[in-house]
Amino acid sequence: MHAEKNYTQMGREELVKLKLDLEKQYNDIKAKGLKLDMSRGKPETAQLELSMGMLREGVCDEVLSPSGVDCRNYGGLDGLPEAKELFAPILGVSTEEIIIGGNASLQLMYDTVSRAMILGFPESDKAWGKYEKIRFLCPAPGYDRHFGICQALGIEMITVENKSDGPDMDKIEELVSSDDTIKGIWCVPKYSNPDGITYSDEVVKRFANLNPLAKDFKIFWDNAYAIHDLYEDADVLLNLLDEAKKTGKQNMVIMFSSTSKVTFAGGGLSFIASSKENIEFFKKQMSMQTIGYDKLNQLRHIKFFNGKYENIISHMKKHAEIIRPKFEKVLEVLDREIAPYCIGSWVKPKGGYFISFNSLEGCAKRIGELCKQAGVVLTPSGATFPYGKDPKDRNIRIAPTYPPVPELEKALEVFVLSVKLASVEKLLG
Amino acid sequence: MHAEKNYTQMGREELVKLKLDLEKQYNDIKAKGLKLDMSRGKPETAQLELSMGMLREGVCDEVLSPSGVDCRNYGGLDGLPEAKELFAPILGVSTEEIIIGGNASLQLMYDTVSRAMILGFPESDKAWGKYEKIRFLCPAPGYDRHFGICQALGIEMITVENKSDGPDMDKIEELVSSDDTIKGIWCVPKYSNPDGITYSDEVVKRFANLNPLAKDFKIFWDNAYAIHDLYEDADVLLNLLDEAKKTGKQNMVIMFSSTSKVTFAGGGLSFIASSKENIEFFKKQMSMQTIGYDKLNQLRHIKFFNGKYENIISHMKKHAEIIRPKFEKVLEVLDREIAPYCIGSWVKPKGGYFISFNSLEGCAKRIGELCKQAGVVLTPSGATFPYGKDPKDRNIRIAPTYPPVPELEKALEVFVLSVKLASVEKLLG
Repeated sequence: MHAEKNYTQMGREELVKLKLDLEKQYNDIKAKGLKLDMSRGKPETAQLELSMGMLREGVCDEVLSPSGVDCRNYGGLDGLPEAKELFAPILGVSTEEIIIGGNASLQLMYDTVSRAMILGFPESDKAWGKYEKIRFLCPAPGYDRHFGICQALGIEMITVENKSDGPDMDKIEELVSSDDTIKGIWCVPKYSNPDGITYSDEVVKRFANLNPLAKDFKIFWDNAYAIHDLYEDADVLLNLLDEAKKTGKQNMVIMFSSTSKVTFAGGGLSFIASSKENIEFFKKQMSMQTIGYDKLNQLRHIKFFNGKYENIISHMKKHAEIIRPKFEKVLEVLDREIAPYCIGSWVKPKGGYFISFNSLEGCAKRIGELCKQAGVVLTPSGATFPYGKDPKDRNIRIAPTYPPVPELEKALEVFVLSVKLASVEKLLG
Repeated sequence: MHAEKNYTQMGREELVKLKLDLEKQYNDIKAKGLKLDMSRGKPETAQLELSMGMLREGVCDEVLSPSGVDCRNYGGLDGLPEAKELFAPILGVSTEEIIIGGNASLQLMYDTVSRAMILGFPESDKAWGKYEKIRFLCPAPGYDRHFGICQALGIEMITVENKSDGPDMDKIEELVSSDDTIKGIWCVPKYSNPDGITYSDEVVKRFANLNPLAKDFKIFWDNAYAIHDLYEDADVLLNLLDEAKKTGKQNMVIMFSSTSKVTFAGGGLSFIASSKENIEFFKKQMSMQTIGYDKLNQLRHIKFFNGKYENIISHMKKHAEIIRPKFEKVLEVLDREIAPYCIGSWVKPKGGYFISFNSLEGCAKRIGELCKQAGVVLTPSGATFPYGKDPKDRNIRIAPTYPPVPELEKALEVFVLSVKLASVEKLLG
């Protein structure tokens, strides 16, 4: 075993020796024929068990909503009133500022952008699709499915760097105030995917006070981890819609969330929230594409949580009990196996689903390869950047929630070994 | 009571006398303060009861699909294999030719057109939205929500007349072969909404053999009533996809259906089916807008029908038991109260959800007004035509399924009285 020493300060001979040693360890672990996955933010089975009450008790015989709506029949475009009451607090809005969607917030996000491409917003001079090209700002590392929407719809992406308290607001302010083809920005403002940080109050206020040249510029505020705290001492996110109302800019804000990581992933509810004016506008547009979403599933959720928001919050504490040890295991291993060697950096998130790891520059792709060959799937390198291109080839999104802890430990063993080996290879040039 | 006589052949004096008599009857019935609805095709409560097994037994504890997929977690963009096997026969396709959607076939239809506006199809020279204007052919009377999609997306609508066995194929062939901005046509080919007819084999073959000038012309084949027979002696619809394969034109065909009128309206499953090539293309596009649809609801359906298509068919017979008396009541009343006076015409459908009534020209709007004032809501006049404009102001879509038979009888009483009164008013000029 090597003395704890900074790899980046080792001499060539020492690195060569270290490499041989690491290669041996790597081949040993590769021979184990592991098959593990640390790539996608999926809840583990025990977490899904937490919501089985939704299937067992709820909506077996009673199909009427509390106000008497037969949830088996057509009607109610924007959701049961009781569903809006129950879930509006997640985004900190009123019931007139929210629409209950289907099982995917991604669908709501895609639909909103897609409709803007064809029809624009009320403030728009013309539909976004009528421009030669429009652009979205993409704080990165970020969420690959946001970038996928832009790519799918032919929207150009401009990467913006993340700072420790949010994206680079100087850059954002400069860009949006000078280019009217910049129509949107993707944000995951709480326990951000993947960096795990929560936007500071200052950042949120600067967002609310943006002066975009494009009258129809929108902030796509994907608050996917709004209530996904892991500790009592949780991050608190300022309410962007409230801030924007102070300057009359509430129409600039569109917020999203879902219960995919609260109840069932792909079997829950999604939400879109915005100013009353925008919500009325969205409802009118949405009425052309659906008669309404699944009210039986809304009823299931209302019954399971007994119509009370505080029950959602105590439910999330149970999720945290399961997830927290996994996050702590990852951080423990990184602290022990990476930190002393100065070959990577990461934030310790207080919630969410990911830990964002930055290796030495130029190593992320190689780390991914090494892991893959040893049977561990990671989020593909580059996935956290627009166009799949991490300019520094260093960011890796660790998703610890799905595997059980023993599997996670094995996967981490492979991961840290791969980081070490790739780092040494890079340092040797 | 008047001698049974053709209104259109009555003399002026007789019409005046008749009008006074009808007005008295009308005022009597208006005074009853009725509140009835014959406007939207909703299943009645007893029909929803037929599927309660889905909520009671299915998916209370067992959350794994037959092949072991945990339906509570992410995954499976195009639907559980068992769901595809179960529902593919509705559209007469293979499991590689179908995608299971969410709760609304309308959403699938809207999405398909909307994506084409932004991205086009593989055969497209350019996205539909890049044209100055594109057009859809709209056989009418037709389904208002189809027309709504066109209006929502800025697509111009060209009305095509319906004949007794399908839309005017001479006109369709002429139009599509001469205008490459005609990109689509809306069809409800079986128990058509609202006419109730089923396209003849000849019509289906002519569709399959269209030679559109637009390489990316698509037939939107909304087979919403595919299995909604009311009699043993059911209509049979030729399979358009099979016919199109004979000439290599299968990519021209996109079919839709749903279980909204099989299990729960707004709480069921939807389907899109097409050539394998199109399905692969759609899957790629759809992967940007959702991670997948609700597998728990797919599992509910698989369990309820025990994975067997024949169970869906016997389930539909139970629906027919409830609906048939209502259709027969409407036809009985029309035969008795309208036919002898030659003031209207209609088809006797063998399935579906609607009876399409054609009054004397220029009377539909007035009939709607009279009904409304007497407390009976009808589908708004014009709704069955693009832009809400029935050029002959004569078509009224009767939707008998939702009200119980006694209510239906009362509503029909108002309806026939309104038809008579409006007809006499029109004849008096």
